[in-house]
Amino acid sequence: MRALSLPSIDDLHDAALVAALRHKIDRKTVPQGALGRMAALAQRLGQILGTTEPHLAQPQLLVFAADHGIAARGVSAYPSDVTRQMVGNFLAGGALVSVLARQHGIALSVVDCGVRGDFAPAPGLLSRKIAHGTADCSAGPAMSPAQCAQALQNGVDIVRALPGNALLLGEMGIGNTSAAALLVARLGGVDVTDVTGAGTGLDAAGIARKTAVLRQALAANAGATDVLAALAALGGFEIATMVGSVLQAAAERRVIVVDGFIASAAVLVACKLAPHVLQRCVFAHRSDERGHARLLQLLNAEPLLDLALRVGEGSGAALAWPLLVSACTILNEMASFESAGVSDKS
Amino acid sequence: MRALSLPSIDDLHDAALVAALRHKIDRKTVPQGALGRMAALAQRLGQILGTTEPHLAQPQLLVFAADHGIAARGVSAYPSDVTRQMVGNFLAGGALVSVLARQHGIALSVVDCGVRGDFAPAPGLLSRKIAHGTADCSAGPAMSPAQCAQALQNGVDIVRALPGNALLLGEMGIGNTSAAALLVARLGGVDVTDVTGAGTGLDAAGIARKTAVLRQALAANAGATDVLAALAALGGFEIATMVGSVLQAAAERRVIVVDGFIASAAVLVACKLAPHVLQRCVFAHRSDERGHARLLQLLNAEPLLDLALRVGEGSGAALAWPLLVSACTILNEMASFESAGVSDKS
Repeated sequence: MRALSLPSIDDLHDAALVAALRHKIDRKTVPQGALGRMAALAQRLGQILGTTEPHLAQPQLLVFAADHGIAARGVSAYPSDVTRQMVGNFLAGGALVSVLARQHGIALSVVDCGVRGDFAPAPGLLSRKIAHGTADCSAGPAMSPAQCAQALQNGVDIVRALPGNALLLGEMGIGNTSAAALLVARLGGVDVTDVTGAGTGLDAAGIARKTAVLRQALAANAGATDVLAALAALGGFEIATMVGSVLQAAAERRVIVVDGFIASAAVLVACKLAPHVLQRCVFAHRSDERGHARLLQLLNAEPLLDLALRVGEGSGAALAWPLLVSACTILNEMASFESAGVSDKS
Repeated sequence: MRALSLPSIDDLHDAALVAALRHKIDRKTVPQGALGRMAALAQRLGQILGTTEPHLAQPQLLVFAADHGIAARGVSAYPSDVTRQMVGNFLAGGALVSVLARQHGIALSVVDCGVRGDFAPAPGLLSRKIAHGTADCSAGPAMSPAQCAQALQNGVDIVRALPGNALLLGEMGIGNTSAAALLVARLGGVDVTDVTGAGTGLDAAGIARKTAVLRQALAANAGATDVLAALAALGGFEIATMVGSVLQAAAERRVIVVDGFIASAAVLVACKLAPHVLQRCVFAHRSDERGHARLLQLLNAEPLLDLALRVGEGSGAALAWPLLVSACTILNEMASFESAGVSDKS
């Protein structure tokens, strides 16, 4: 294995560009301020792509998939087999994210970061398997430091090879709301109860059991307080790979479209490693998973959609995608008061 | 003029179809309930179009445009001329709704219901002008009963001639947040203060002046309590035409995509005439215009987007459109647990 060297992420703040974008938006033929959050979105896309004429090209949605040892502790309403089965569903084009990606012309790839079970090579499948699922983190670290470093590196390398200028984050992994909750609790400094939810559909008793198991996991990994140590001890292969991809996408100034709770947790980890990552992120939606609203607050993020989804897969990112395209279209195609001959405010 | 005969709107509730849609949605390969509000949207579209395989065809966005006599009383931050200028902008393709309609393949037409000023014939322009703006409703009725009836009939006839199965509502008219506020106050039984906002950008003093003028208008038309009388006395040509189009679209079981405050006010009027209209409506967004949230409550409507827009034109409807397409795609293209070979909840 190569020595891990994470991309460095610079501050992309450019006062002249910010002003130029603001002026361009303010002259569009709507009342001042009337574009609401679409104006902020246009600003952000212009800043990420470094231009007052941003164009989104060849968007790539990656579904990072892996299994979790902690799933054996009954933290999910579904069996681990579902991770492997859903990968098949993604590749066959029948999953939610599959149909949404097709609708919007988003290229979809599945990254096997550590699914239990094996796959024949298939179009759209990237095999970056570290192991057949992590170890049970309620009894010790989920990953070794070397496994975690390899997953991060895989994520970096995958994005290096991707075309386009936008990355949409998706994931699949029975047990991964547990891993995400653990990371948010440890790195965000919140009580695990506040970020532990129903996942794929636990009832109240199930959530109570899940919370108790997560407390064991935090206790079993009490020393893992450093960001990378916490990621290895409490995360998952798909989350670590996603963190690597987020860092690389940010370094390349790609637009990063963040999905729900697990993707946001990966972004939290990435931000702890490189705070300017956040400048490159667009938060797609507020999921119905209990911890997501709290996590979005931690990230100071206001997502575009709030549709009570709790699917994951990148489905929220895909649903929000047309709004990003619209924001660019507003900048590039709308008339100004001057060009349209419309009178400004009297 | 023909005698006004408004379309009748039946109750489209069909218990068997509701159950069939619910079953189909529940078997999709996501955890139970995880589709959140996309499931409710898919249900609604299936019910409107009367099938478990709904397809949206040839969506039509109509921008109903007219001027308002009350604008002379200083209720808007922009001069009345802007209505005419913006019609030119819509036709030239440079307005917000123009670029969004183009992005999503939505056909856009502008209906001149009563703009001050005249237009040469142009592709995409329907001339249904009643007069060059309404009378000032702070001094008496905005329209005569005959004018209002003609506008309603125009709206009916326009939709009869439209292809497709979805109607997106847009409007343009300096002064029309005033007309909408008056209609909501009178027909919704709320105080006019609660539904009077900044419109195109009034400051607090401007809103206070606007509110005082609207109180004069309510007093000047105190006898107009019947729905059609209220519409004539307090509405506008574009709102009355839109009401006719909403009624006809509902009668034909088209999907009606409701935009912001003014379009929602037209839907309120239509519902007072025929309550089952609401079954055919999808509310696109919650606008930043003060009265809209209150009006949505009156209509018991939960909109899809909440982006702090206050543009009108149908822009919110156009932004939400891809979500409707997604809801159909979910019903038609997503795999079921059975077809994908994915294990259901353990």
